Amino acid sequence: MIVSALLTSVGINFGLCVLYFTLYSILRKQPGNIHVYAPRLVAEGKSQKKTHFNIDRLLPSTGWVKRAWTLTEDEIMSVSGLDGVVFLRIITFSLKIFAFAGVVGTFILLPINYFGDQLSISDFSDLTKKSLDSFSISNVNNGSKRLWVHFCAVYALTGYVCFLLYHEYKYISSKRIASFCASELRPDQFTILVRGRSSSMESPFSDGVESFFTEYYASSYLSHFVVHRTSKLQGHISDAKKLYKKLTQLRSSNEGRHKFQRDGFLGLFGRKVDLVDNCEKKLEHLEENVRMGQSDSSLSGQEVSAAFVSFKSRVAAAIALHFQQSNDPTEWITEQAPEPRDVYWPFFSASFVQRWLWKFVVIVASTLLTLLFLIPVIFVQGLANLNQLETYLPFLKAVLTITIVTDLITGYLPSLILQLFLSFIPPIMKTFSSMQGYISHSEIEKSACSKVLLFTIWNIFFANTLSGSAFSLFNILLEPKNIIYRLAVAVPAQASFFISYVVTSGWTSLSSELFRMKPLVFDYINCSKIADEDFEAPSISYHSKIPKILFFGLLGITYFFLAPLILPFLLAYYCLGYIIYRNQILNVYVPKYETGGKFWPIVHSSTIFSLVLMQALAIGIFGLKKLPLAAGFTVPLLPITLLFNEYCRKRFLPIFKAYSLESLIKKDRDGENDPRMADFLDELVTAYKDPALKPVQYSRNTNEHSAPLLGEA
Amino acid sequence: MIVSALLTSVGINFGLCVLYFTLYSILRKQPGNIHVYAPRLVAEGKSQKKTHFNIDRLLPSTGWVKRAWTLTEDEIMSVSGLDGVVFLRIITFSLKIFAFAGVVGTFILLPINYFGDQLSISDFSDLTKKSLDSFSISNVNNGSKRLWVHFCAVYALTGYVCFLLYHEYKYISSKRIASFCASELRPDQFTILVRGRSSSMESPFSDGVESFFTEYYASSYLSHFVVHRTSKLQGHISDAKKLYKKLTQLRSSNEGRHKFQRDGFLGLFGRKVDLVDNCEKKLEHLEENVRMGQSDSSLSGQEVSAAFVSFKSRVAAAIALHFQQSNDPTEWITEQAPEPRDVYWPFFSASFVQRWLWKFVVIVASTLLTLLFLIPVIFVQGLANLNQLETYLPFLKAVLTITIVTDLITGYLPSLILQLFLSFIPPIMKTFSSMQGYISHSEIEKSACSKVLLFTIWNIFFANTLSGSAFSLFNILLEPKNIIYRLAVAVPAQASFFISYVVTSGWTSLSSELFRMKPLVFDYINCSKIADEDFEAPSISYHSKIPKILFFGLLGITYFFLAPLILPFLLAYYCLGYIIYRNQILNVYVPKYETGGKFWPIVHSSTIFSLVLMQALAIGIFGLKKLPLAAGFTVPLLPITLLFNEYCRKRFLPIFKAYSLESLIKKDRDGENDPRMADFLDELVTAYKDPALKPVQYSRNTNEHSAPLLGEA
Repeated sequence: MIVSALLTSVGINFGLCVLYFTLYSILRKQPGNIHVYAPRLVAEGKSQKKTHFNIDRLLPSTGWVKRAWTLTEDEIMSVSGLDGVVFLRIITFSLKIFAFAGVVGTFILLPINYFGDQLSISDFSDLTKKSLDSFSISNVNNGSKRLWVHFCAVYALTGYVCFLLYHEYKYISSKRIASFCASELRPDQFTILVRGRSSSMESPFSDGVESFFTEYYASSYLSHFVVHRTSKLQGHISDAKKLYKKLTQLRSSNEGRHKFQRDGFLGLFGRKVDLVDNCEKKLEHLEENVRMGQSDSSLSGQEVSAAFVSFKSRVAAAIALHFQQSNDPTEWITEQAPEPRDVYWPFFSASFVQRWLWKFVVIVASTLLTLLFLIPVIFVQGLANLNQLETYLPFLKAVLTITIVTDLITGYLPSLILQLFLSFIPPIMKTFSSMQGYISHSEIEKSACSKVLLFTIWNIFFANTLSGSAFSLFNILLEPKNIIYRLAVAVPAQASFFISYVVTSGWTSLSSELFRMKPLVFDYINCSKIADEDFEAPSISYHSKIPKILFFGLLGITYFFLAPLILPFLLAYYCLGYIIYRNQILNVYVPKYETGGKFWPIVHSSTIFSLVLMQALAIGIFGLKKLPLAAGFTVPLLPITLLFNEYCRKRFLPIFKAYSLESLIKKDRDGENDPRMADFLDELVTAYKDPALKPVQYSRNTNEHSAPLLGEA
Repeated sequence: MIVSALLTSVGINFGLCVLYFTLYSILRKQPGNIHVYAPRLVAEGKSQKKTHFNIDRLLPSTGWVKRAWTLTEDEIMSVSGLDGVVFLRIITFSLKIFAFAGVVGTFILLPINYFGDQLSISDFSDLTKKSLDSFSISNVNNGSKRLWVHFCAVYALTGYVCFLLYHEYKYISSKRIASFCASELRPDQFTILVRGRSSSMESPFSDGVESFFTEYYASSYLSHFVVHRTSKLQGHISDAKKLYKKLTQLRSSNEGRHKFQRDGFLGLFGRKVDLVDNCEKKLEHLEENVRMGQSDSSLSGQEVSAAFVSFKSRVAAAIALHFQQSNDPTEWITEQAPEPRDVYWPFFSASFVQRWLWKFVVIVASTLLTLLFLIPVIFVQGLANLNQLETYLPFLKAVLTITIVTDLITGYLPSLILQLFLSFIPPIMKTFSSMQGYISHSEIEKSACSKVLLFTIWNIFFANTLSGSAFSLFNILLEPKNIIYRLAVAVPAQASFFISYVVTSGWTSLSSELFRMKPLVFDYINCSKIADEDFEAPSISYHSKIPKILFFGLLGITYFFLAPLILPFLLAYYCLGYIIYRNQILNVYVPKYETGGKFWPIVHSSTIFSLVLMQALAIGIFGLKKLPLAAGFTVPLLPITLLFNEYCRKRFLPIFKAYSLESLIKKDRDGENDPRMADFLDELVTAYKDPALKPVQYSRNTNEHSAPLLGEA
């Protein structure tokens, strides 16, 4: 790729960004869009609907940027919990890295690369026709003393990133402990999930749990709640919910608003009143079914050998969690209970064997997905290398002579197609994770986050750099001794592709995140507004956003000394992300769960991996560039970085697994004087009741808009 | 190797065995040898010294074989604890495997191999000149339908071994729990080791421990004992002990016995009385030093930030063990305390940084040892392949034409040399493990056991089969795709070497274990007998014996279908081992510690590895033998075996890590009514006092032979 192609790509995407920003600045001020651009405020009832019109509404303004900029960490904490804070800290953390890397890369390494003449003589004539390769390390002369600057840069970046990693881990750990100490009374702190029926147990599971815990935890055991297999009931309830929504729409249209939509089509065949009545009858019938199912134990679903067991204190719950209960370790397996809203109920409907089987199916499916995904990657690769395309599709030759088309195809199209395919991955991985046997939404998203990250690194980074064809890729893997040199040749060569990828995939996806195209379109099509009380604000899908941010971090760190031209674009990406995500967390997303910052260890591992990859590439490059001394001196960095990682794992990771005795006891002692404790323990008994077993009431109060929206999970 | 060479080797070793057995049968009956052949009985004071002479004493007898044969498991348990039981069960377990494998191999597979004619026409003329290869699978014709018998045998053995593994694991788990339930009051059940000073802690470590545990374990905390760095004191004490031994020898020689030895040399230069007096004065001076060191806190060694913390109940100790105590996971790290006699005190003398450094030094040293060990292996390999030897050392040609020399060199010498080199490995590995930071002798031996096993498998099995030269071995490792086929070619070719190895290394080492050559010689040289009360019986060194037994198991399982000729020899080995080790445990060894069967998981993993290796070889062999269908159908065995292993890890391994709440509470409740409990808790306070800090008293009561033998560790 030459400079002009890059400029085309940057131009298009910059234009798109400006367009999105302007549109957002105007559209967010329209009262009709409040469900799209400020759903959090709507759901919390904080939105004030301005109905009066003024000219200000049609002019773009930057007030929201200032608001997002001035947001403090305490505000973020109160709005979206520690997870939100951690999410935004990923961006500031990356910003800190690339501010340093950007300065070093652009002002020191880039000139050195450009004034080398391994690939082309350095001059400033017709810069736009120059290949981007002349900005990369490939252009530095073999054996040149200038490569020692690159060597120093590798050491400096490693030191700096490790320093940041340590402090960030420390800070987030302390935040996690502090937020635990400051937390309200939460059922999940007092509860564990117990699974696994004892083979000697004849009585029902519930009695077994009762007798076991009253015997061995006599002083601290409070209550338990056995899980039932309620998939049928859940089905009925979700039907009822759908019907209720439809009914609300019908009613609102009957009341004179939005008559002209959708239900008008049905109005052709019958009276509207009949339709509402009909619906109401159906709903009542369904609810009757649900109630019958709930009261009849045979219908309310089989008992699953899993129970939420609650204790009178946090320490007692933690003791039960840490211990192997029975002499047979496969009985009474304990697990930290998730928050009640976070429980993934369908999981319990699957039997043990099913879950066991699914686990393997998921592994096979993930592997297959990774393998099959190479096909679009190869295609994309073909577009980026125009020569290949011309050989395969000769009829395109005429078209491809037009400069702008060539620039478009090599600069913009490959990233766009790749991005399209990639957008399917997070939902697929989340589905996989949910089959895998996690008991909470947060665990599922955490697992999906790792899966997507691995997928992205493997398919985008390695598949793109290492080969055009899957076959040679496997050959490389089977010959590990050459892998570093292969990478050292292949990675710099792909620099231009990744610069264009950052611009296309990074910039544009960020601004479309701000613009919220899909919700906006849906909102316009589906005009039957639901009441503010029933309105559900979207939750941020960490499993698709975090891997993207981390992958750009990986690109930046690995290309830092290879092709520093990528750094300014990355810096722009993170600056954009800083403002946009702060704004979105403030206005759009409502957290669905609170893990207490458990996503950070993924960030840490990913950054360590990036560093190690960079160091391995440095060894390879210095070897290829005939500077074996520098390669040799880079080798110690690898074990040092891994040891640093090992230390951090020892020092910080346990904090993210469980709380310490010290903090649990302190918290328990504080709680002893809390007057709300007695009420809380009463509520705890029913906190983990399956929503499918809670009373359902849609039909009678459909007009009051206060129906309990249950059966979510 | 041809049959006659094998027969030579078998003949020599069989002769040696018979010789050793006969000598043992006679020598064990001589009263003078009681310290060599029944040290356990001597140490326990159960030996009755027969001084009257009769002719029976000079005739070999088999009474001891009968006694060993009729030994019950309860007796073994009482004599050498669960570890002894587990050790003997490894042999019975192997016997069960090879009884089955031997029958299948010798009566089904061996004839099939022999009647193939891939390598040579099957006839019975001059059997002794036949190559041993004609008994291996290599002799079966390519693509022959008979290979399906081998295929079935692989499946049958896998199923049978997995069945045995499961039942054995289950049996030993239940034994472990039962022995815990039946155990006496033991200090280690009530104690944990706490390490890691808090950075915020200003006061001495002892005060910090006291205040932390009284605050957070108010009801159950009993006492603690801070460890001191006592290497200097330990040095003094061991000097005193040596001097005391010398003094005893001098005294006993003065009393008229054994005058003629060693000290006679000193008698040339001075009066004997002077010598004793001199020694006594020295000893008193040393003891004075020790006492001064103990009383003076500045001399008794720096406080180490490690303390043994004792609790009033087992459950409390276990809770403290399982919990992360402080918000900083690197503070108050808890670990199960070993038995007081099992503590490895020198470990505490090393500082944290020293231990950290040693850990890496040990890893590097182990790797180096593994690499350098290839040199003797290559040499041994050269001997086995006589042709190579003749090329390198042409002057030997004349000698090598004599049949018996050739047979000796190819059949016996290689194994003997290998065995000699190998005998250095267990002590070296134990030294490595002791540097690695384990706090108890049992942990050190367990770690050394794994190290020796890995070393043996790698150096004896892989290095011998895969190559003659280290260089090509690494090449193979770097090309993993060919590794199975390479192995499938190389492993059957080495069958004859391993058969000879079983006979030489296995049989002879077993009978020399019975004969106890080294202690016998030492006993004769060093005639100054120490008193029975001071006599220390040797402990069984599991880390050198278990890997050997397991390695023969690996050989047997992998060669089961490749060269079944090895099986009868292995069966003989295990039968010998069964009798000999039962006898030795009954008469010779006294356990130094009790791990409660923690060696079994190593046996399990090793057997699973053998199975997987056999299956991989089967896939390779069936592929080479042009029976791809059989190779394909063998593939599923691999994941099935690994899944089985995974299940066993889940089901049984946690039992070997910690005791369950159920059994701890039951044991505690039993203890509540125990009248000895109060006394025990009093003793517990000082149970973990460093032996170097306990009073030393050698000088005054040297005549009474009741000096406390302290400062062992």
